[in-house]
Amino acid sequence: MTDEFSSTLLEGAVRELSRLPGVGRKTALRLALHLLRRDEADAVALGEAIIEMRRGITYCSVCHNISETELCPICASPARDSSTVCVVENVRDVMSFENTGQFTGLYHVLGGVISPMDGVGPDSLEIDSLVARVVEGGIREVILALGATMEGDTTNFYIFRKLAQFPDVKVTQLARGVAVGNEIEYTDELTLGRSLLQRTPFTDSFSR
Amino acid sequence: MTDEFSSTLLEGAVRELSRLPGVGRKTALRLALHLLRRDEADAVALGEAIIEMRRGITYCSVCHNISETELCPICASPARDSSTVCVVENVRDVMSFENTGQFTGLYHVLGGVISPMDGVGPDSLEIDSLVARVVEGGIREVILALGATMEGDTTNFYIFRKLAQFPDVKVTQLARGVAVGNEIEYTDELTLGRSLLQRTPFTDSFSR
Repeated sequence: MTDEFSSTLLEGAVRELSRLPGVGRKTALRLALHLLRRDEADAVALGEAIIEMRRGITYCSVCHNISETELCPICASPARDSSTVCVVENVRDVMSFENTGQFTGLYHVLGGVISPMDGVGPDSLEIDSLVARVVEGGIREVILALGATMEGDTTNFYIFRKLAQFPDVKVTQLARGVAVGNEIEYTDELTLGRSLLQRTPFTDSFSR
Repeated sequence: MTDEFSSTLLEGAVRELSRLPGVGRKTALRLALHLLRRDEADAVALGEAIIEMRRGITYCSVCHNISETELCPICASPARDSSTVCVVENVRDVMSFENTGQFTGLYHVLGGVISPMDGVGPDSLEIDSLVARVVEGGIREVILALGATMEGDTTNFYIFRKLAQFPDVKVTQLARGVAVGNEIEYTDELTLGRSLLQRTPFTDSFSR
């Protein structure tokens, strides 16, 4: 469908909106017309928030998390345990771990996982900079926290091999098992098998 | 879920994006992070396109279609047949009819249809201004082109009654090629074009 817009301003907004992921031309038009019906101040606030965010946010020079400063608040915090580094795929994963409130160490954002099918090799990821952080010293544990997928496993293994040259650095990975709240019968066989092999001493999680 | 964002700029952009219809907080975050990965110029272009569109677009003083000038290009065009007015629900419907290439007259955008359930009465729509256009003279035909829904039919009938006081003005409606229950914007151009060509004198479908 090629819409003939009577307004070049509307055409421009629709064109830019439709470049967002998951937003087709129909949806972009709907969003644009919605913005036209809203108060001018609201639409301007959206436009300015996008521009200010893009101009003001950069990536932390150490962990590659998003940051408004050269060093992100997590890397800059003296309260965080700088001897433990959690390797994650992307910025959203950092947020997920921060939301658990269980982690006090630092992060290292790879920017993806190794995926030859998508043309993503180790060189396109922040793996060399991770090794450089380990070489610098002070890191005693690297937690590999990539997704439990084929690509995540491959990337975990690649990093594990890279870090094998540092015997003083412990390399760990996330526990694989039955997700909290899940029924046994709906858990896949692979996960169930691994959770059985890697069973842990019983602790009464209710009384804690 | 309450995400703790390390960046107030990201927080601001996510808050504004999540006010768009159909965009939740998760989607807003995905869009924001996508914009962070894109070139700065792209994100700025999106923000500016939204602001410029909202600031530059107003509504035509005659037909209430969106316009960058007081009189929209359609109303201002000497090539259009000003004796025929097509009454539509919204701005998207104008685009739909323009895309058929079958209509050379003018439009009148109601801004909705009568829907007591949603608190939309005749007074919230541009019906009085339509009657005023007819009173001004020069209009020989009013085409009722609202969706083939209960609300569309009700509104068609309401306008038909209002225009009954002008015996010189022919009131027509779209041929019922439009599938009952369908909205104008989702009807294919062929059906829409044919329904326009085969428009019939208005009949009260309720009393039959």
